[in-house]
Amino acid sequence: MAKVGILMGSDSDMGVMAKAADFLTEMGIEFNINIISAHRDPQKLFTYFENSKTNGTKVIIAGAGMSAHLPGVSAALSSMPVIGIPMSNSLGGTDALHSIVQMPPGIPVATVAINGGLNAAILAAQILAVADEELFAKLVAYKNNMRDAVAQKDDRLNEVGYKNY
Amino acid sequence: MAKVGILMGSDSDMGVMAKAADFLTEMGIEFNINIISAHRDPQKLFTYFENSKTNGTKVIIAGAGMSAHLPGVSAALSSMPVIGIPMSNSLGGTDALHSIVQMPPGIPVATVAINGGLNAAILAAQILAVADEELFAKLVAYKNNMRDAVAQKDDRLNEVGYKNY
Amino acid sequence: MAKVGILMGSDSDMGVMAKAADFLTEMGIEFNINIISAHRDPQKLFTYFENSKTNGTKVIIAGAGMSAHLPGVSAALSSMPVIGIPMSNSLGGTDALHSIVQMPPGIPVATVAINGGLNAAILAAQILAVADEELFAKLVAYKNNMRDAVAQKDDRLNEVGYKNY
Amino acid sequence: MAKVGILMGSDSDMGVMAKAADFLTEMGIEFNINIISAHRDPQKLFTYFENSKTNGTKVIIAGAGMSAHLPGVSAALSSMPVIGIPMSNSLGGTDALHSIVQMPPGIPVATVAINGGLNAAILAAQILAVADEELFAKLVAYKNNMRDAVAQKDDRLNEVGYKNY
Amino acid sequence: MAKVGILMGSDSDMGVMAKAADFLTEMGIEFNINIISAHRDPQKLFTYFENSKTNGTKVIIAGAGMSAHLPGVSAALSSMPVIGIPMSNSLGGTDALHSIVQMPPGIPVATVAINGGLNAAILAAQILAVADEELFAKLVAYKNNMRDAVAQKDDRLNEVGYKNY
Amino acid sequence: MAKVGILMGSDSDMGVMAKAADFLTEMGIEFNINIISAHRDPQKLFTYFENSKTNGTKVIIAGAGMSAHLPGVSAALSSMPVIGIPMSNSLGGTDALHSIVQMPPGIPVATVAINGGLNAAILAAQILAVADEELFAKLVAYKNNMRDAVAQKDDRLNEVGYKNY
Amino acid sequence: MAKVGILMGSDSDMGVMAKAADFLTEMGIEFNINIISAHRDPQKLFTYFENSKTNGTKVIIAGAGMSAHLPGVSAALSSMPVIGIPMSNSLGGTDALHSIVQMPPGIPVATVAINGGLNAAILAAQILAVADEELFAKLVAYKNNMRDAVAQKDDRLNEVGYKNY
Amino acid sequence: MAKVGILMGSDSDMGVMAKAADFLTEMGIEFNINIISAHRDPQKLFTYFENSKTNGTKVIIAGAGMSAHLPGVSAALSSMPVIGIPMSNSLGGTDALHSIVQMPPGIPVATVAINGGLNAAILAAQILAVADEELFAKLVAYKNNMRDAVAQKDDRLNEVGYKNY
Repeated sequence: MAKVGILMGSDSDMGVMAKAADFLTEMGIEFNINIISAHRDPQKLFTYFENSKTNGTKVIIAGAGMSAHLPGVSAALSSMPVIGIPMSNSLGGTDALHSIVQMPPGIPVATVAINGGLNAAILAAQILAVADEELFAKLVAYKNNMRDAVAQKDDRLNEVGYKNY
Repeated sequence: MAKVGILMGSDSDMGVMAKAADFLTEMGIEFNINIISAHRDPQKLFTYFENSKTNGTKVIIAGAGMSAHLPGVSAALSSMPVIGIPMSNSLGGTDALHSIVQMPPGIPVATVAINGGLNAAILAAQILAVADEELFAKLVAYKNNMRDAVAQKDDRLNEVGYKNY
Repeated sequence: MAKVGILMGSDSDMGVMAKAADFLTEMGIEFNINIISAHRDPQKLFTYFENSKTNGTKVIIAGAGMSAHLPGVSAALSSMPVIGIPMSNSLGGTDALHSIVQMPPGIPVATVAINGGLNAAILAAQILAVADEELFAKLVAYKNNMRDAVAQKDDRLNEVGYKNY
Repeated sequence: MAKVGILMGSDSDMGVMAKAADFLTEMGIEFNINIISAHRDPQKLFTYFENSKTNGTKVIIAGAGMSAHLPGVSAALSSMPVIGIPMSNSLGGTDALHSIVQMPPGIPVATVAINGGLNAAILAAQILAVADEELFAKLVAYKNNMRDAVAQKDDRLNEVGYKNY
Repeated sequence: MAKVGILMGSDSDMGVMAKAADFLTEMGIEFNINIISAHRDPQKLFTYFENSKTNGTKVIIAGAGMSAHLPGVSAALSSMPVIGIPMSNSLGGTDALHSIVQMPPGIPVATVAINGGLNAAILAAQILAVADEELFAKLVAYKNNMRDAVAQKDDRLNEVGYKNY
Repeated sequence: MAKVGILMGSDSDMGVMAKAADFLTEMGIEFNINIISAHRDPQKLFTYFENSKTNGTKVIIAGAGMSAHLPGVSAALSSMPVIGIPMSNSLGGTDALHSIVQMPPGIPVATVAINGGLNAAILAAQILAVADEELFAKLVAYKNNMRDAVAQKDDRLNEVGYKNY
Repeated sequence: MAKVGILMGSDSDMGVMAKAADFLTEMGIEFNINIISAHRDPQKLFTYFENSKTNGTKVIIAGAGMSAHLPGVSAALSSMPVIGIPMSNSLGGTDALHSIVQMPPGIPVATVAINGGLNAAILAAQILAVADEELFAKLVAYKNNMRDAVAQKDDRLNEVGYKNY
Repeated sequence: MAKVGILMGSDSDMGVMAKAADFLTEMGIEFNINIISAHRDPQKLFTYFENSKTNGTKVIIAGAGMSAHLPGVSAALSSMPVIGIPMSNSLGGTDALHSIVQMPPGIPVATVAINGGLNAAILAAQILAVADEELFAKLVAYKNNMRDAVAQKDDRLNEVGYKNY
């Protein structure tokens, strides 16, 4: 039973959203992934969240660019945590960032960095890990691995020098 | 039968929206005015646009601040022209402007200036005047009056000088 | 008799404006298309709007970049609805967006997204459809087609999975 | 046992953080609240998160302005979900928003709106409600109340008209 | 015979424009001052520049806010140097700055600082002084006076110390 | 005797400055062109302006990027009109625009568009034409040629249609 | 013999600069303080730095707003470390920040926060402390005091609760 | 004994940081260079600064992008001068600039230009030269060389003309 729902407004966002899907797979977290446009098919989005009440979805990850209403409308249609990913465009993603993060009092969206597909998935896992000690341990291990990977780069830099790095 | 629907996401936007209502009144255009939050009651917004199909509404004016999804969701739920007014806040209204104007291909919102309540109503009247010669004549007269008002200020400036203006 | 006038300040805007022209053609809406610079030939723009009073033009679509005065001057010279398209440049189109959307009280421009040629044409069609039920039906059908196209992408995603999409 | 840790970098942020504390109180969620500066006492922050491993804290809410490192360093020191609130200043809060939301891959901060103290607390509650059906029901009720409050304002507007609102 | 034409789009700009008028008066340069809106009365602006060909006007100072088309349209209607002053508003004047300074190739506007009424007049005087040695000497003297005024402040600071300044 | 001094802070600005030089050549206006960095050789800049008092220079065109002090220091060292050109970089030229246009009261710089080499030269010519009727006539002719060039493009568009343009 | 030179372009910057002077006084570091405008008296600035070669000045603190050339020109005229403070204005200080921080390769300015008078002085003391162990110890003690002051606020918060803070 | 510590948060910053290392090498200043992420290994950063108290490090150069906490946390962990370099990204480096320069009162970071690796190293050398006359002389010579290099470009421009440059 999928615990995370990944939503994107357009298949042009697939590259960023795939990073989220890859991380959830790595952590062994089941997820659904859908292309549903808040602007082009709001009724389908309503139905999606109607269904989510009984199908076990616990967290939403929604990515969108430009006016970027998908995360905010998802938050309006649900009481689950909704994580929003602003997609970059000719304004560098500032428009999507503003549309997603500046939600009015009462309806939060947990916004991550522009194009931050990986971080959205890590945040989703952290949320699920609040009540899942095994998953929490996996996240700690993941973080330790990141730490070690940087340390190895530092070691290599000290061995070969910056000119040969 | 009301031809214009005025929507605001919060009653804190009333000051700006009242300028729109005042102009429509001046032009003799019937309108409804409602507070419906796209974030706090999306279902009511759906019902509003379901009803709009049969109640004669021809143009929507929607004002919102911050993430400002109301105009965009209105445009998603209808094929009428939707006019969006970004409301200013601590970011000067840049967030609402981005949220409203940067709609994706297929779903336009006719965006006016930050806090531009009057201009939204003039634009709504111009849209209705496309098929209403009498209204068009009123708009031409209104524009001439604006022109004359500036001319009178200019005349006064030339009479009294800038130090005494 | 052309109902829509498409104006661009420079032929470098042709790529964006052609999207507007293509949509109007698809909807069966007659249009004129002209290159008239508000800065390089203001007199021709005056003449254009003088003629528009009798030649049946109902809506203007005007695209411009940088200081982007063409939509605003068009709005000053007419009481028709004027739709403005900001063109992107080294500032990402922020300069043109500001020049077009921040019109003073009394003279609105219906601004769409940066480089939003298609949305400008849809908005023009929505405006004409206020008094044209047949055209309104076409717009509803167009919107339904957009909805179905996204649904098909979603179906395909569910069939092949995000890795093979 | 407190499930939420509220952190602020300076007591000048108390007004915004108090909104978070008020909401958690309303929902019956225990919390700690502390003033710990990431810049002025990083060691205390380290100790805080060392202690958090055993004291039952599940979610962090961290508010900060200007360079706003507190949420990001908290995220670095923990695998819990960390919610960041950018505080406004002479740049309108853009600096704090950038510092908080643009976290590098691997270390997310769940960013809410500028000065969004209430939304941070709602998000924290949503996260805890993932494994707490009773709390989830409270959040649904809270949302319904918000919806009804807007509906009442709309009813009043329809009764008294916008001029008397 | 007035050599400088001062134009403003609205009498709300009078405070800034008066600084320009005061400086020209101080330098003994004759000027006209008018309120002509490029948006509300473009025909009057045409007539103004038609007349300017024979009435001795040599330089234009034009101030405007928001979309700020007045300086650019003035430059389009003339081959005189046109000096533009962006007026600040809720966006801090960024919108007017973009509208005025980002003129397309072929039609320059000499843009000064936001609300820079004094600097616009000094620039106008510098332009006239290119062919007027007496005026140039006045400008050199004015600059020397500014220099001396700062030096006197510095002297006073050294006498009384910064605590008593 | 050169009437215009063209200055650039770095030879990386040559492409933009060459457009200025080309226009001055076309108008028959003599000019000097120099690479002098306000940051790397301020003394040479002092000497340059000391010499300018007697060598007939009437107008300065100065281009610079990033902190872009060259136009402002030139304005400080002279009472001639100084035209500033902001150069674009990774911030799109916003930094240079701010550095050049926001001069304090007393010391104006006549700022043109980002990378606006041609417009800087046209402005310089307009300034010299204040006291040179022959040059003014050349500028009028140049403007007419620009107008006609756009008209020819418009004619061609009407002949071949936008699809074949 | 003064080791730090404090410069401001205008006495309107005195409030911010006084914070720098106060801190230097507290640390027992001698300083000069002057009002010298890079724009209004560049020659005096040259003389100032000519004198600095022999009068023992080791570090410069320069504050300026808008185009904010004072720190950059100071850096051009010297090989000492120059610390720049951007002053806020109607653009929130973004213009001064860009003018000060974006110095070209070869001529750095050590930029601190907008209106950051205190931080500029701390940085100056840190620079002098590189070769002054006694001063370094004072800075460590200052930092410890800051840390303790925050800890006391945190203690008080825990005693009285956030509602009574 | 290394006097300068160069830190970067990610090896993707190596290109910019190498410019700093190259300059220090040219000046004969010993340095360490490390990859330590404030987000991925804060403990290692703590240890680094604990060690720095006894290993002779006098100045830190820290580069980081996006949320860019490395320079600020370094400043929090030390009383040495810390020089920060913002790295550019899809927002042009504005996010990193805000994160680095807007440090709160008490904890300065000496910020240089976006991607300003060379300037960071020059500033580090200027700081060390406060108590090292030989190094100061090297910096003066370096500056003179920069000056002469620009002068040679200017000479060449005057010889060959801008068309052949």
